[in-house]
Amino acid sequence: MNGAESLIQTLIDGGVNVCFANPGTSEMHFVAALDRHPEMRCILCLFEGGVTGAADGYFRMTSEVAATLLHLAPGFGNGFANTHNAGKAGSGVLNIVGDHATYHLKYDAPLRGDVQGISQAVSHWTRSSADAHSVASDGASALRAARSNGGQIATLILPANTAWEDAHGPAPHSEPPALHRPRMDEIVSAAEALKRPGATLMPGGIALHTDLALIAGRIAAKTGCTLRADYFVPRITRGAGTVAMQRLEYAIDGNVDRLSDTTHLVLCGAGLPVAFFAYPGKPSLPVSADCHVIDLCSAQMDVAWTLNALADELDARTGVEPVFTELALPALPTGDMCLSKLAHSLSALMPEDAVVIDESITSGREFLPATEASRRHDWLHLTGGAIGQGLPSAVGAAIACPDRKVIVLTGDGTAMYTLQSLWTMARENLDVTVVVFANRGYQILRAEFEHVGAGEMGKNAMRMFDVDEPLLDWVALAKGHGVEGTRVSDIDAFNAAYRDGLAREEPYLIEVVC
Amino acid sequence: MNGAESLIQTLIDGGVNVCFANPGTSEMHFVAALDRHPEMRCILCLFEGGVTGAADGYFRMTSEVAATLLHLAPGFGNGFANTHNAGKAGSGVLNIVGDHATYHLKYDAPLRGDVQGISQAVSHWTRSSADAHSVASDGASALRAARSNGGQIATLILPANTAWEDAHGPAPHSEPPALHRPRMDEIVSAAEALKRPGATLMPGGIALHTDLALIAGRIAAKTGCTLRADYFVPRITRGAGTVAMQRLEYAIDGNVDRLSDTTHLVLCGAGLPVAFFAYPGKPSLPVSADCHVIDLCSAQMDVAWTLNALADELDARTGVEPVFTELALPALPTGDMCLSKLAHSLSALMPEDAVVIDESITSGREFLPATEASRRHDWLHLTGGAIGQGLPSAVGAAIACPDRKVIVLTGDGTAMYTLQSLWTMARENLDVTVVVFANRGYQILRAEFEHVGAGEMGKNAMRMFDVDEPLLDWVALAKGHGVEGTRVSDIDAFNAAYRDGLAREEPYLIEVVC
Repeated sequence: MNGAESLIQTLIDGGVNVCFANPGTSEMHFVAALDRHPEMRCILCLFEGGVTGAADGYFRMTSEVAATLLHLAPGFGNGFANTHNAGKAGSGVLNIVGDHATYHLKYDAPLRGDVQGISQAVSHWTRSSADAHSVASDGASALRAARSNGGQIATLILPANTAWEDAHGPAPHSEPPALHRPRMDEIVSAAEALKRPGATLMPGGIALHTDLALIAGRIAAKTGCTLRADYFVPRITRGAGTVAMQRLEYAIDGNVDRLSDTTHLVLCGAGLPVAFFAYPGKPSLPVSADCHVIDLCSAQMDVAWTLNALADELDARTGVEPVFTELALPALPTGDMCLSKLAHSLSALMPEDAVVIDESITSGREFLPATEASRRHDWLHLTGGAIGQGLPSAVGAAIACPDRKVIVLTGDGTAMYTLQSLWTMARENLDVTVVVFANRGYQILRAEFEHVGAGEMGKNAMRMFDVDEPLLDWVALAKGHGVEGTRVSDIDAFNAAYRDGLAREEPYLIEVVC
Repeated sequence: MNGAESLIQTLIDGGVNVCFANPGTSEMHFVAALDRHPEMRCILCLFEGGVTGAADGYFRMTSEVAATLLHLAPGFGNGFANTHNAGKAGSGVLNIVGDHATYHLKYDAPLRGDVQGISQAVSHWTRSSADAHSVASDGASALRAARSNGGQIATLILPANTAWEDAHGPAPHSEPPALHRPRMDEIVSAAEALKRPGATLMPGGIALHTDLALIAGRIAAKTGCTLRADYFVPRITRGAGTVAMQRLEYAIDGNVDRLSDTTHLVLCGAGLPVAFFAYPGKPSLPVSADCHVIDLCSAQMDVAWTLNALADELDARTGVEPVFTELALPALPTGDMCLSKLAHSLSALMPEDAVVIDESITSGREFLPATEASRRHDWLHLTGGAIGQGLPSAVGAAIACPDRKVIVLTGDGTAMYTLQSLWTMARENLDVTVVVFANRGYQILRAEFEHVGAGEMGKNAMRMFDVDEPLLDWVALAKGHGVEGTRVSDIDAFNAAYRDGLAREEPYLIEVVC
């Protein structure tokens, strides 16, 4: 058994059975080892951003770690942005990155690069295997790291000779360390705070897509506090029958308004809400200076224990019911295209149990409120702000949930970063409907240019924001990747195309000219 | 004048007049400053790999530094692979990377990342500006760094507030430090070595695309040594009328053969030739153990002075003529498609003064010898091994040389990494003919799987190497980006399409099914 084989066996024994891959020469022995283990499902992506984004989407929908297979420092670089997003989402991902054979490194071959350096810039855990005998135990350590603190980025660097040289065999896997918990006096203080007028409980992490939301809802019902989630959350189960929850929005000004009456803010699985960017003359934080912020439990801590302890302290486990969202579907709009109508169409036609991947940026600002009372679904947001996450994470979500419809809502500028994921959707015949909002530009930058007070917009600036000379043809781009698609420019055509896409059990792309 | 304006003015004063860009919110004040300086040409790329690859191509054809504009750590990540390639090519590139405002960093906003960490993993010089007053002098230092040692990667990180806060004004630019030179006794020893039987002179860097090649040729003519260039070189001027030069090839076995008789190897602008990867049981170096390697002058040193000093020492400056390549065009092939015929077509139809960007990987192994005696042209190779460099660097080369035909020879797998560059070709109406060799897979990995002795190929492996379910439709992909294209599957159709592409003064793509 060589090092690569010992690693695969260790991962399979540890419960990893999906590998998103874009391998190169230094990973050939790993690929060969995969060949002997068909129980590990290998999914090829034609660009590494597709690989790492898929692993993120997979974790969000399963809470299970997938492996990625990447090729040296440049391959890791191509996957960096979606690794960043996965890290910000609290997703557990196990990157396996090939490197030159240890004895070849000193010759500075063309692909020699600082794999450790780039990995450490974004991973929570990085290790380069010293020899073939260490690979299995390093793999077990990497898996444990990826599963620690609720989910982390673990990167194992595999010099080529450690894969092909003899190894002892697989290593046993070990459970991640117990999650940190707040002290009981912190629970008591937080419980007291939640009883105050103007108190808000902000749940996050797994509290947004598990039964923990019920507990949060009972706490809110018992104390009268506001229940509010952040805007960018990795995954939230929402719609009819779920616990009603307010949200923050993207813009700092709106969030300052929303939180202006909040006197006590208890964070449980959520980080402190912050402005996405700093703007001249605007605050970095939406909470007022005299709001008591109680950072009770981060998403990396034991959110389940903490919410239960809070509920116990408040005697909110039984005898009180959360407020649930009731189904309320809008009439299907007709006529000319506009974003408000699109929001209503998406709400009216939402399939039960859909998984919505939202990277719609400016186009989608109305989608979230409009779909609050539609049929029950999961909504996944871009958590790290690095655009190009939507299509890749849809691949991972669709692999994770083959029985659910995955819907991607994406801007055109943003979809261009990782459009190669369309090919993987076609190859794996994934049940994904992709809606591209073609406003033909980086619309957000036009707004941001104003927000930062950069002055009048001239030719150089406009040419940085417009993507209209030439126009991108998304139907052709989809076809090029083996995905069928259509273009619509009025709302009736959208409704028909969207219904068509949802009725299929294969990838389909709709370019919405808006 | 704010920090951004002071930086732009510094760069323009310093002679930088092209900026390849993919900006975000944190770069809006920089974009606004660009607006007031139309003398800086801004070129939008829809993905950061396009940005950094274009800057590489631009430097290779002009020896001038272009600026890039990137958005935080993930944006740098997307540009990492082609920054790696540019660094390996010895290209000077000045990356400007926006970051959060200094006072906003502590809040860990979604896009907060380790910009310095990822930059340091690939840049020769990294600095984050501390305040607006420092930006201009930091910019001047960055430009000096990018121009040092013949060309380097310099990365200046610009926190948003350092761009929008008041600054004093532009900073004066300063020349890079003098290049290092070998000692005279090293020149004397190298000259002696070149007179020995079995001596080889390996020129590199600027010696391959300037008049320095004549000096190398005279040294070879005078001493009888072999003149041989490495396989992967950033740029070489070749074809009819240029100094005849042998080359290495990709495979280690072939290079071992080629260098088996070499007793003395003098490196002048070139690094020690090494195997691209290590393979079990094969050597890392192609030179024999008893070959005397004289590492006289790296590409980062003063290659011009060194070659001249060598020629002086050997009395080879006058009275001796290099061997020049004579024009020898093959007959235009006809009939069925095969790679050998394609090589002859490319040779027969080579336009005078073309710039060939070669990322054809396996398909192109015969192209280099076949075009040795065609019309004079420049040939640019992928120097860092990170695929996805061809299309982006063609953008930079075409911006650099608007009067020359740029030809991209690219594999299909490799072109998929940065296909977004097609859009920039269309927008800027660049005179580029793109030839995609559609062998529908990572053909190189099939070969490498064998070379590393990974055993029999099974289903998991084959699904990692084949890109044929579904087929990529390159004509549709080109159309999607606004570029006209055609598909050919016999050599006559290729000849016609290639002539058509060459006759245009706009981008055109030919998908060659082979």
